[in-house]
Amino acid sequence: MSRYLTSPSNPLIKQAILLKNKARERKSQHAFVAEGLREVRLALLNGFEATHLFYNPDQTDQDTVNQILDGAIIQPDEVVTVSQSVLEKIAYRSSVPNVVGIFKNKPAGKYFQRAAQATAPLVLVLEGIEKPGNLGAILRTADAAGVSAVFVCEPDFDLYNPNAIRASLGAIFTLPLFETSSADAAQLLKKEKVTIFATYLEAAKSVYSCNLKEAAALVLGAEATGISKFWLEQADQRIIIPMSGQVDSMNVSASAAIVLFEAVRQRQATTNH
Amino acid sequence: MSRYLTSPSNPLIKQAILLKNKARERKSQHAFVAEGLREVRLALLNGFEATHLFYNPDQTDQDTVNQILDGAIIQPDEVVTVSQSVLEKIAYRSSVPNVVGIFKNKPAGKYFQRAAQATAPLVLVLEGIEKPGNLGAILRTADAAGVSAVFVCEPDFDLYNPNAIRASLGAIFTLPLFETSSADAAQLLKKEKVTIFATYLEAAKSVYSCNLKEAAALVLGAEATGISKFWLEQADQRIIIPMSGQVDSMNVSASAAIVLFEAVRQRQATTNH
Repeated sequence: MSRYLTSPSNPLIKQAILLKNKARERKSQHAFVAEGLREVRLALLNGFEATHLFYNPDQTDQDTVNQILDGAIIQPDEVVTVSQSVLEKIAYRSSVPNVVGIFKNKPAGKYFQRAAQATAPLVLVLEGIEKPGNLGAILRTADAAGVSAVFVCEPDFDLYNPNAIRASLGAIFTLPLFETSSADAAQLLKKEKVTIFATYLEAAKSVYSCNLKEAAALVLGAEATGISKFWLEQADQRIIIPMSGQVDSMNVSASAAIVLFEAVRQRQATTNH
Repeated sequence: MSRYLTSPSNPLIKQAILLKNKARERKSQHAFVAEGLREVRLALLNGFEATHLFYNPDQTDQDTVNQILDGAIIQPDEVVTVSQSVLEKIAYRSSVPNVVGIFKNKPAGKYFQRAAQATAPLVLVLEGIEKPGNLGAILRTADAAGVSAVFVCEPDFDLYNPNAIRASLGAIFTLPLFETSSADAAQLLKKEKVTIFATYLEAAKSVYSCNLKEAAALVLGAEATGISKFWLEQADQRIIIPMSGQVDSMNVSASAAIVLFEAVRQRQATTNH
């Protein structure tokens, strides 16, 4: 029998609100909330386990909900109908989405090994990323570039915060994504014999002169401070995007797009000839 | 004799606050405010005329101000010292910048013709751009790519709004930038025999198979709605960025970076061989 919740003080609703608002809660519960048809569907399709889904039956019909649930790992009695005012309380966006879910973090465990076993894996490493919005945009690009894995090292925020999920349009769920220390990421890359390319402005080779067709990891640093000494030392090659102009600074999301799609271009050129 | 203003109700300070806050005022006065050492310097260096500059002498020393003013077109008595509380009132950023200026718009007039007369001009056309932050990021990329001109057609906001200036880190001043109707932009491009490439998802050729070495205009549409029928009809070639992945959507700023730097790559390859 499906539940209908109308009180924001219901314990389940309180849990959802806490997970939306508090990084600390997300960390201690190993859980987060995602909202929106597209995002919730992508999370479920990519093996994230929802513990609860909420929707307002006056706004969203049963067919839409069934479409989302098709193939999902969730107990039917954990699909909970709620009033519009409750939905507004647990939603992050100002335009209230039609569905909100509580999800468990997916254990990263042995996933990287599998990702690295792809032929010529293309790995993105983001060090000390400062803004959830930038992470979201970069993950959309990484999804489009078909990367094998993304390492997010020492981010300034927790990955599954609502702003990062929203800005990624769900790409945060489609990618093999690992929040690790820089040391662990470098060790894994070296173990799998992935060449490390670090974007840097000095003593660097143009990205257009580098061979990105083999197993490659592209490392980007924080926008304010750039890449750390650690990654410069780990790098097999420093690369630079050749820039003209007076400002001499690109958004990290633009830099990521340029280097990732240079790899895509080189790899497609290989396939075609 | 230099003025020292401490009252937010001084008419000059009220004008600066209005220009910061109201698109309508910027439009009727053909003026805007820019703030920060870097941004103000870039505006002055690129021929924008400041009618007034404000700084707090307790925070910013005379040498710094002289550096900014070196070569600038401004009357010395229009460099006004203000109290910190006044500076906070006229500043857009929460971290108050060290200098704020009132600038006149630069008449676009015959600039495009000059830009188009560059050898193989590379032109960026942004249609119906929705967010000042996106415009700013794209202009940083366009500056780095050394584009000859940027047409901003039917934007959802006025170009010199504080958020666009801030996000551009001053690139909004370094680029030949034209706010025009799509019709005017297309006419100018055709007159100067610039090949029009429109990014579109259907019946399009991979950007990596297109020759972007000759005079080329790259047209990007609004993120939500894509490119308009008008530009599809004007285009000599539809181009697509080959995407894999599940989300199938990139940020317009990422798309702009990819197509602009593909042109940069092709043009450098020409130079090198």
